[in-house]
Order: sequence, then C-alpha cells, then structure tokens
Amino acid sequence: MLKIQSLISVLALAGSVSVASAWEALPTKAPEPANNIGSAEKIALGQMLYHDPRLSSTGTVSCASCHNTMLGGEDNRPNSMGVNGQTGGRSAPTVWNSAFNKVQFWDGRAGSLEDQAAGPVTNPIEMGMKNWDDVVARLKTIEGYKTAFANAFGSDAITKENATKAIAAYERTLITPNSPYDKYVGGEKTALSEQQVRGMEKMAELGCTTCHSGAAFNGEGAFQKFPVTPHGFFEAKYHFSKDKGVAEVSKKPEDEHFFKVPTLRNVALTAPYFHNGSVETLDQAVKIMAKLQLGKEPAKQEIDDIVAFLNALTGEFPKQTMPILPPTAGSTFTK
Amino acid sequence: MLKIQSLISVLALAGSVSVASAWEALPTKAPEPANNIGSAEKIALGQMLYHDPRLSSTGTVSCASCHNTMLGGEDNRPNSMGVNGQTGGRSAPTVWNSAFNKVQFWDGRAGSLEDQAAGPVTNPIEMGMKNWDDVVARLKTIEGYKTAFANAFGSDAITKENATKAIAAYERTLITPNSPYDKYVGGEKTALSEQQVRGMEKMAELGCTTCHSGAAFNGEGAFQKFPVTPHGFFEAKYHFSKDKGVAEVSKKPEDEHFFKVPTLRNVALTAPYFHNGSVETLDQAVKIMAKLQLGKEPAKQEIDDIVAFLNALTGEFPKQTMPILPPTAGSTFTK
Repeated sequence: MLKIQSLISVLALAGSVSVASAWEALPTKAPEPANNIGSAEKIALGQMLYHDPRLSSTGTVSCASCHNTMLGGEDNRPNSMGVNGQTGGRSAPTVWNSAFNKVQFWDGRAGSLEDQAAGPVTNPIEMGMKNWDDVVARLKTIEGYKTAFANAFGSDAITKENATKAIAAYERTLITPNSPYDKYVGGEKTALSEQQVRGMEKMAELGCTTCHSGAAFNGEGAFQKFPVTPHGFFEAKYHFSKDKGVAEVSKKPEDEHFFKVPTLRNVALTAPYFHNGSVETLDQAVKIMAKLQLGKEPAKQEIDDIVAFLNALTGEFPKQTMPILPPTAGSTFTK
Repeated sequence: MLKIQSLISVLALAGSVSVASAWEALPTKAPEPANNIGSAEKIALGQMLYHDPRLSSTGTVSCASCHNTMLGGEDNRPNSMGVNGQTGGRSAPTVWNSAFNKVQFWDGRAGSLEDQAAGPVTNPIEMGMKNWDDVVARLKTIEGYKTAFANAFGSDAITKENATKAIAAYERTLITPNSPYDKYVGGEKTALSEQQVRGMEKMAELGCTTCHSGAAFNGEGAFQKFPVTPHGFFEAKYHFSKDKGVAEVSKKPEDEHFFKVPTLRNVALTAPYFHNGSVETLDQAVKIMAKLQLGKEPAKQEIDDIVAFLNALTGEFPKQTMPILPPTAGSTFTK
C-alpha cells in the first residue's frame, strides 16, 4: 500500500516543498487488464447488468442506483440507500473515471474494477443477494441474458467471473474527457479563467496535488491518512474519525484512518463530500482539507479560487444509449 | 365511468355473444391534449424529470424506479418499493403505451397522464416529497433545470404544472409498435404462428376482448369489476377482494372492486399480475380471468394458445438516449 503521509512529512521537514506538478489531461481510454479486453458485446452486456435492478434481492437496486450514470456517477447522498431502505456509513464514490483508480472502494480493498463489481451485489445492506450462486441462477432464468453472455464470452457463459468482467469492461468506458482543465493543459489557454488558473497554482502550492496527483487527481492508487491532524471542532461536527478506513479491513493499527485518495474529476457534481459524506459544499471541503491535511488556513479568496478550479474538472459526459434489459418472464421479487 | 359489467350481463342473457372484434394495430403516435402538445424540448425535459431520483425525498426513487423504461415499463414486483424501503398494496402498471389509457392508476382516479404524474411524487410511501412546493423549490436549486424548463416552456417556468406536462409529453412517446400481432393485423399473415392465431380467436370467443378492447387491449378507459364472481379458492390464495378498487377513492358501494381495464400490450414482460401483483405467471392469470370474469374453464391447450397470443403483443421498444441529468451542486439528501 502506497502511503503518502511519510513522503509529505519528509518534504515538510525539508522546509520548502518543490511543486513541479506534472499537469496531465485525462486519457480518453482506460487501461485494461490483459484478461479482460473490452469488446462491443461485453460492454453492452456490462451496461445491461450495471443498470439491472434484478441483481438485487428486492429487484429495486442496481449498480446505477447508487453510482448513477445519468448524474455525476453517484447519488448526492451522504450514504447510499440499498435494499429495503437500508443505509451504510460511507458515501458512494463516482463511477465516472473509476477506471483510473488503481484500487477501488474508500478503503481500497478491491484491486480491480472486476473485484469491486462483485462486492455490493452480495452486501446485505446494498444489493442484498445471498450469494453469487443465487445471482447466477437468477440471470440464467432471463432468456435474453443467455444470448448476451454467449455473445460476449462464448456459450453457456453466465458466471460470476463473466458478469463482473462485463460490468468492469463497461465501467472502463465511463470516462469524462475534455474538461476545461484538459483543454487548458492541451494548449487552449482561454479554457480556464484567470481565477481558475490561480486556483490551480494554489492547489500545487498548498500541497493538494501531492496526494491528488496524476491525470485523475487520485494519487493513482495511493492511500492517505484522513485526518492527518484531527481537529476537535471539525471532528465534533463531522465525525471523520469514526471510520477507521483501511484498518476496518486489515485490523492493523498502522492502517487506521487511511483511505484511498479519491479522484477530483467532476468533484463539483459529487456533493456531499468525504468518506462519510458529511460535508455539503465544496468550499467547506477545501477548507477542511487544507486545515486537517496540510495544516493551512487559506484566505477566503484562495478557497474561492480553488473551488473555481475544481469546477474546471467537470468533463464531458458521453451520450449513451439506454440499455433495453432482457425481460423477466413470469417471476417476481418479494423480499 | 364506463362500466362494462352491465353490458356483459345483457350479452350473456342474450345467450350467444357475437364477437365481431375489430382487431386494431397500435398507433405509432399517441393522442395529445390541446394544452400540452409535445415538443422536442418538452419531451427531453420530461425524460430527465422522469428519470431523476431527486424528485423523491431521499433522492433515491424516480418515476423510472417503479415504471422502468429499460424493462417492460414496471418493476416485476407485486408492489413497488418507494422511499425508505416502503411498499404499498398495488402493482405498478406499465408506462409503455400508457398514453393510450383514457384514465390512469388501477382505480382510474387520474384523468390524464399529467394528473397521474403529480401523484406518486408526494405520496408518502412512493416518492415521499412533502408537497409540490418543495419539489419546485428543489428543482429551482438545480441550475440546469432552469434552462431546460425555459427551453420547453418559456422563462421562469419551473412549476408543478409544467413539470407534470413535460413528464406526460415524454410518456406519450413511450409506445411499442410492430408487435407480431400488429404485423399480422397489418397484413403480414406469417407474423403469428397457427397457435397464436388460435389463441387470438379464442380470446374473442371467450369474451376477453369485450373488456380488453381497442388497439391497446385496455378497454379505452373502461372499468370492470374484478372479480365479477368471487371464488373461494382463488380468494383465499390471492386476496383479490381485499382492495376495493374505485370505491377506495369514491367511497361508493356501487364502485366496490371496480378497476380500470389494464392494457395487455407487453403483458408477457410485466409479471406478476393483477392489481395486487399476486399471480406470478401468465397462464395462471389467464386461467383466473376466464374463471372469475367469464365463468369459464378453458382446456389447458386453449390457455396455452392464449398465452402464445399474448406473447405476440410484445412490441418493439424504441432506442432512447440516456438522459444526462443537470447536476446538484453542494446539497444532499438526508431523509
């Protein structure tokens, strides 16, 4: 696990942090694992599965319910609502550009989109299926999926592995290029306002981009402690430290309060903020990050500049055809 | 309210029912009210609103959650699941071809798609908004809706009336033409199998099409008592009579157990069946209808023929572009 905190400490001790940030545009194609190269058939199947509420016990919750592809890739809620109105403790990360995260989930417990896709389906408070055998059995009752899986993977191919591969292949197409920032980096100097350029430079100067690095501003798989320096007032108000992050999974004290660095792409669309979705506005989120992570208190104008820049990370959302899901014949969801 | 029962009684007394059914293909365009002619802008706005979960208190339930436009226009559940996992007593009718219903809801309490669209949003167990003033206030916080409403209706136009008009205008585009039945009626005699033709004729002969009449097989706004003749075994199993239908609204004894005649278009995709979604399969639904409504017990082969014909009422679902919803900036849903 690549932890950034030690790096920051070293830099801080050195007195002055050199910030030769490499500003990168978002690639228009995501990296693919060798064992899951996308095809049109696989992506089409993945899009169907992603939007199919029949992957949940009640038939009411799909991947898209919480990671909404018609919005900023999540649900604008502090925590998501799974089957039977249940809620968990974390805020849904955006699916847009998630293909550029080297690890998935707030605690990074999934090493790939394929691994991630398997999780929520059988989480009792998310999609609530008992196990993947039941998911596969249900999919096999839907005639149209037999054809769609066969087209994507060869005959008799409805399995957990193929379902999650198809979903991941689809997710790798969910990229939002051509944000004002990308255009600016590509040479179109009028794409950002003067204020946005100030905000961009301020982010590097403050140290934001030490963690939020790379084309997706996500540290490319790095983890960071949050809060680095707990703060009584913010803690009382937002309860950031209630969630032990990576340590909830690893049970190791040294992992406590470490989280995957989230992308800043489309961050203006994905309120509320932080792992527990406790902060409603972007300016408050910036203020908190500066204080808790970097020990700084930027002036209001500086925060406004940064927020203006973050708004320039909103990309172009590709037009998608709405999937037509293969029908259920004569069955029902009663849970 | 056009009640069919008295008509049937008269015909039954006459001894032999003449069944010169007028078989009609589904129109490709739905009738529009003079005060809500569809435009591209209005339909696009309606599609956004229809798919926007922010029209619910929790931000999790859209019109499409229960009337799923990626499936057969409903949710394949006995009853739908609204905000916070709540469920009601009726099964969601399909939105596909609902523009051909002269009345909406199982009890026909809405006289138009516009009226219908207003209901679920403020129903506490469906979308749970306190009132439409709150809906309008929330929509006004979403910058992109200001533009979309202005484009559709003129400036400063976010109102309940315009929101429901836009949704209704969109719903009028949700038509599934070119089913095998439509092709057959249009002259393509190979579009139906011999079995399907037998089933079609049997439906007329038994009297099914007395109520399920017209191009949408929905009686064009007619109401019918269900069950006409209650039956102990089916009642004990399916509790059909628990719901008083129209009388739940009118409180008049003479309206007890009357329901709008539902469309049979795409009926093979919309299990489970009846107002309370208590019957899982189409063959059982046909058997029950024959017994309770017509006092008949068709042979298994006849039921199979009718089911084969009903499968020929599955139409072509138009390709739709997935709406990109205008983003929420810095707010949240916590209910």
